[in-house]
Amino acid sequence: MSGNTIGKLFCLTSFGESHGPAIGGVVDGCPPGLSLSEADLQRDLDRRRPGTSKFVTQRREPDRVRILSGVYAGATTGTPIAFVIENVDPRSYDYDKIKDVFRPNHADYVYMQKYGRRDPRGGGRSSARETAVRVAGGAIAKKYLAERLGVRVRGYLAQIGALQLRHENWDAVERNPFFCPQAERVPEIEALIDRLRRDGDSCGARVEVVAEGVPPGLGEPVYDRLDADLAYALMSINAVKGVEIGDGFAVVAQRGTQARDELTPQGFTANHSGGVLGGISTGQDIRCAIALKPTSSIPTAARTIDALGQTAEIRTTGRHDPCVGIRATPIAEAMVALVLMDHFLRWRAQCADVRSPTPRIPPTFAG
Amino acid sequence: MSGNTIGKLFCLTSFGESHGPAIGGVVDGCPPGLSLSEADLQRDLDRRRPGTSKFVTQRREPDRVRILSGVYAGATTGTPIAFVIENVDPRSYDYDKIKDVFRPNHADYVYMQKYGRRDPRGGGRSSARETAVRVAGGAIAKKYLAERLGVRVRGYLAQIGALQLRHENWDAVERNPFFCPQAERVPEIEALIDRLRRDGDSCGARVEVVAEGVPPGLGEPVYDRLDADLAYALMSINAVKGVEIGDGFAVVAQRGTQARDELTPQGFTANHSGGVLGGISTGQDIRCAIALKPTSSIPTAARTIDALGQTAEIRTTGRHDPCVGIRATPIAEAMVALVLMDHFLRWRAQCADVRSPTPRIPPTFAG
Amino acid sequence: MSGNTIGKLFCLTSFGESHGPAIGGVVDGCPPGLSLSEADLQRDLDRRRPGTSKFVTQRREPDRVRILSGVYAGATTGTPIAFVIENVDPRSYDYDKIKDVFRPNHADYVYMQKYGRRDPRGGGRSSARETAVRVAGGAIAKKYLAERLGVRVRGYLAQIGALQLRHENWDAVERNPFFCPQAERVPEIEALIDRLRRDGDSCGARVEVVAEGVPPGLGEPVYDRLDADLAYALMSINAVKGVEIGDGFAVVAQRGTQARDELTPQGFTANHSGGVLGGISTGQDIRCAIALKPTSSIPTAARTIDALGQTAEIRTTGRHDPCVGIRATPIAEAMVALVLMDHFLRWRAQCADVRSPTPRIPPTFAG
Amino acid sequence: MSGNTIGKLFCLTSFGESHGPAIGGVVDGCPPGLSLSEADLQRDLDRRRPGTSKFVTQRREPDRVRILSGVYAGATTGTPIAFVIENVDPRSYDYDKIKDVFRPNHADYVYMQKYGRRDPRGGGRSSARETAVRVAGGAIAKKYLAERLGVRVRGYLAQIGALQLRHENWDAVERNPFFCPQAERVPEIEALIDRLRRDGDSCGARVEVVAEGVPPGLGEPVYDRLDADLAYALMSINAVKGVEIGDGFAVVAQRGTQARDELTPQGFTANHSGGVLGGISTGQDIRCAIALKPTSSIPTAARTIDALGQTAEIRTTGRHDPCVGIRATPIAEAMVALVLMDHFLRWRAQCADVRSPTPRIPPTFAG
Repeated sequence: MSGNTIGKLFCLTSFGESHGPAIGGVVDGCPPGLSLSEADLQRDLDRRRPGTSKFVTQRREPDRVRILSGVYAGATTGTPIAFVIENVDPRSYDYDKIKDVFRPNHADYVYMQKYGRRDPRGGGRSSARETAVRVAGGAIAKKYLAERLGVRVRGYLAQIGALQLRHENWDAVERNPFFCPQAERVPEIEALIDRLRRDGDSCGARVEVVAEGVPPGLGEPVYDRLDADLAYALMSINAVKGVEIGDGFAVVAQRGTQARDELTPQGFTANHSGGVLGGISTGQDIRCAIALKPTSSIPTAARTIDALGQTAEIRTTGRHDPCVGIRATPIAEAMVALVLMDHFLRWRAQCADVRSPTPRIPPTFAG
Repeated sequence: MSGNTIGKLFCLTSFGESHGPAIGGVVDGCPPGLSLSEADLQRDLDRRRPGTSKFVTQRREPDRVRILSGVYAGATTGTPIAFVIENVDPRSYDYDKIKDVFRPNHADYVYMQKYGRRDPRGGGRSSARETAVRVAGGAIAKKYLAERLGVRVRGYLAQIGALQLRHENWDAVERNPFFCPQAERVPEIEALIDRLRRDGDSCGARVEVVAEGVPPGLGEPVYDRLDADLAYALMSINAVKGVEIGDGFAVVAQRGTQARDELTPQGFTANHSGGVLGGISTGQDIRCAIALKPTSSIPTAARTIDALGQTAEIRTTGRHDPCVGIRATPIAEAMVALVLMDHFLRWRAQCADVRSPTPRIPPTFAG
Repeated sequence: MSGNTIGKLFCLTSFGESHGPAIGGVVDGCPPGLSLSEADLQRDLDRRRPGTSKFVTQRREPDRVRILSGVYAGATTGTPIAFVIENVDPRSYDYDKIKDVFRPNHADYVYMQKYGRRDPRGGGRSSARETAVRVAGGAIAKKYLAERLGVRVRGYLAQIGALQLRHENWDAVERNPFFCPQAERVPEIEALIDRLRRDGDSCGARVEVVAEGVPPGLGEPVYDRLDADLAYALMSINAVKGVEIGDGFAVVAQRGTQARDELTPQGFTANHSGGVLGGISTGQDIRCAIALKPTSSIPTAARTIDALGQTAEIRTTGRHDPCVGIRATPIAEAMVALVLMDHFLRWRAQCADVRSPTPRIPPTFAG
Repeated sequence: MSGNTIGKLFCLTSFGESHGPAIGGVVDGCPPGLSLSEADLQRDLDRRRPGTSKFVTQRREPDRVRILSGVYAGATTGTPIAFVIENVDPRSYDYDKIKDVFRPNHADYVYMQKYGRRDPRGGGRSSARETAVRVAGGAIAKKYLAERLGVRVRGYLAQIGALQLRHENWDAVERNPFFCPQAERVPEIEALIDRLRRDGDSCGARVEVVAEGVPPGLGEPVYDRLDADLAYALMSINAVKGVEIGDGFAVVAQRGTQARDELTPQGFTANHSGGVLGGISTGQDIRCAIALKPTSSIPTAARTIDALGQTAEIRTTGRHDPCVGIRATPIAEAMVALVLMDHFLRWRAQCADVRSPTPRIPPTFAG
């Protein structure tokens, strides 16, 4: 229950530093009998991996995952599933020169304030490398949700810098390294990234995630609401500064008469609520969005201090994506899947035998 | 650890339905020796209370809180602090006619799907009345934070419908029932609310909360980040659909060179990050914002279904605020205070004896 | 997750001091649809109540429980069930004279060391009065277990001082105020208690609890074992110094060939294990036992210190049972029921849909 | 919060099967700045290791531990400390023949009932091999307790079969492979074990653990008492069927006048309570004891069933200790250390700044 575990019943405990021997995680609480192999985790790890295109950091980590426990004869046994990913390309020398100088907008300074020490190699624990653990753990949740409940969790890049992207269909998303839903606009993104690289700059991004097929009834009405736990899980991703469910901040200027999801026997008339009402899933698509800040590690010089509080200057020259949002889609999907899986088990604990007098209505009705 | 408890070490467990005998809560984990009386809780309850002006719901609840345990001789003893607020003005007849018809954008339908039953009187557990419990529990956290750490948690209305309000100073905020930071614009808000009432409509709002004086080092770096727990706590408030920390969604279009909070011995040069980096407090002001959707209970008729799934029509004629955001400020403050208090205790558990070689730098430096 | 909550999914949060306004609790996580009224809680409270015979403390507390939430139309709704018991007969004057003198073998001294202060009235939080909360919460668990799973949790007095009592049948247990399973030996107990009263002394006791009808599969194999959680719950009862499962300490001198519960299609050949193997229920009766130390509050003078550490003498003359074990049976039953209920929900979360290729064998076979 | 994590703030999450790729654990919540290396974990692992003498199982596992994270430049950083122990000598063929036959008094049958499947190699998750993880995690707790608080946690064999051993001094304990406190009686133990081996039988044991130097104030008064958490932790060890604190079951026949630990400015006059009153440490030695059942895996034939519920016979011929108690001492010490460490952090969170008006009295006074 310390800070490196997420989930109440489907729990992922994460460990590892960017340039230590290995990173990894332990998934506790997975139901037995789910067919599972390392390839199931590897698939999403490969989607997230650095070095998949010239547009993301060139660090070459095969990110080869190894399952240490909890799987026997091709299926989960109900015991903890531990997995590790060895760190094979640390190149710590890249970081040596910045060892005692704090990178602005990074966790360097706060780690020193909190712990009085830190592993400076590659950001140590605060490195985005930890997100590989989320992706691996989330892959287990995704697989269960898909196979047992027919739930599909998918994300895409909705905006990068000033470029707003429209979701047209899911096919395009997986066919480019940016998770861009409009194939024809990929060259624009490439041009933006090239420009940022040239300028020694970076930009922010918006990623949206949709979960289809989620049954109604998931979420605890007060505090541990489904949307509250989604907000927690998504805000915990490095660089995220905002989370929206459904219409998000657009609701501020909406009128109650416009923003209603009316109920009809044929389905809801709209999905402004993003699939959650009163903290509980409605049976409609869960829709959420995150805002990711521009990459903080950029080669343009900045003022900073060193470990003793003295004035310094810094230019970060390591291998870094000019937009962290590019690789964030699989991570955001993983966090959503972890939350849904946890709430499915929580629902089953308390309400597995409930028979409602009220029939379920279909998700959304175009009326 | 079920869904009605918030916090790991400073825990608030909430109970109660809108029209049951009472609502209340139990705060477990409060340090001993904090001077505390019912008046300390009552103050914030009065700020949140319905009926404080003609612009909020006219339900007349004195919301008189009674402490049942955990306080002796005027101070906390370290044992659980239970408090109750009796429900004295239920007027359940208002709700009888809508008992078997689901209010759109309310939790009625999802409660029936999840639990197979519900207490229909006034929304039961899903009523905004539960937020009084948050406010009472949060008042204890606020008092500790203020007296022991010098932390001040304050919020204000930043937008209502299309009216954007600028924060000029804190004095104005407490002098009007809307927590509006611009005294001269209160008539505009009154006019807006009158218009909504006449139109049988409602609108959304944006509330911002600032916590000053938070020491650096609060927050667990992975998953239980300070910002992640803030997002959880704020998103758990009824009607909230979005949460921002620092610059929030504005970061999407920012450049890395513009969005940096550089470090100097004189302080940070800016506070885009909203006082949190890598999930840990920086010592700067914690800044967060929430989006509240328009009140769902409006007298304009809408399509819906009844408990057996049949087509129905509904017009909600009970006593409801035309904008839930008006009374949300003390609630949002309470949630921020609960999270800060919990993380202060978590910090003390792990790091109380850390002496950092790095000096603290001042919050923000106007440079 | 602070110290006054028990359970992971079926959670009881307890509050209250012996002589404060009230004691009470919140049960969170109870499945919806369980028929429940105050009478269901009152029944076990009456079994535990002081003043039921001349052999237990003469404090006259009606212990009238009031449910504040979570029950509607005679059934649980799935939301938190809060209940309170007002303190109506405090007689604090009894305690005034010992206010600043620590009672040996009581928590007075350690409360002062831990919290630096304490509510001295009647032992405050450390009073056995808190066990009423356990009994009320446990009554909810017991009712669910009985009605939904056919599980029966019953206890009896197995030894008081040197008097060993043999369990012959359950009928006798409820027909005397000592929960003595041998009706004919009740006069011996009465004589013992009279003698202790005369001598200004007290004695210990052994209480055994049996849970019949528990399905196999409850308990998490590592750490949160069913027997580990039973040990936790039972050791948390005031005055308990030992816990046994199955044969308990008798196993030390046993041989492996003698102590085996062999498996046959007709059932287990014995139940040395007390219904738990590898931390998981076997389907046999759960058998556990506790040792309760002699009442510490006795009128025979003892050396002690006062709040400033000075030498003092104390004679406790309040109303106290000469053997705390007399009233412990309903409390021990409640703790066992709370643990079983929690593990039933935990089992359902992870394993509700498991179909085992191995048939269940009957509990025990007299062979 | 699933079943394979122990601790609220100092958390050990365990994973691994006896014959899978590896076992290991993650310690989350360790304070930063504790000097730590693999050698610190290895020391206790070597004390527990099989094959240390001809009297324990001859399985040759070097049990070489590898730390994967959380340690930098020789000290803990405050981030999770993951460690793994590869399984190098599985010899699974030993177990092939018993794969589909349930070993009596083992977890085989209940795993099949709970999970519908199991890893049958060497007992899989239910193997005593998992206790190596406890020992490694406990070594970290022990080191912190010793270096920062001066707490010393040590155990010894108090009884094996019918042989009762008297604790005379600690020096003898570490000089024989049985943790026997009376050097001169080691030959008796050797003779007993030889006899059991010859008879194809096994016996039980009693192990006692003493923690010296524990400050007063650790433990939450209700439910999460120090003794309750010790009971949980100790009962969670494989084969344990009973737990005692202080005088344990001997209290049943005691009189209140005899069993008192009176307080004097020179110290307590006795330690019947085992260092815990009202769930909180008194500053005296913490004394606890466990009962371990005879090894279930013995070569004497027994009746059982197979995976389909059919009658079978079994003789376990693998490498097994004839008394599991022989190697249990380091495991019990580890569990006590984990609980004390967790409660130290919990104490610091809530009460770090308490200054009591009452002076601490010395542990025990021989008066």
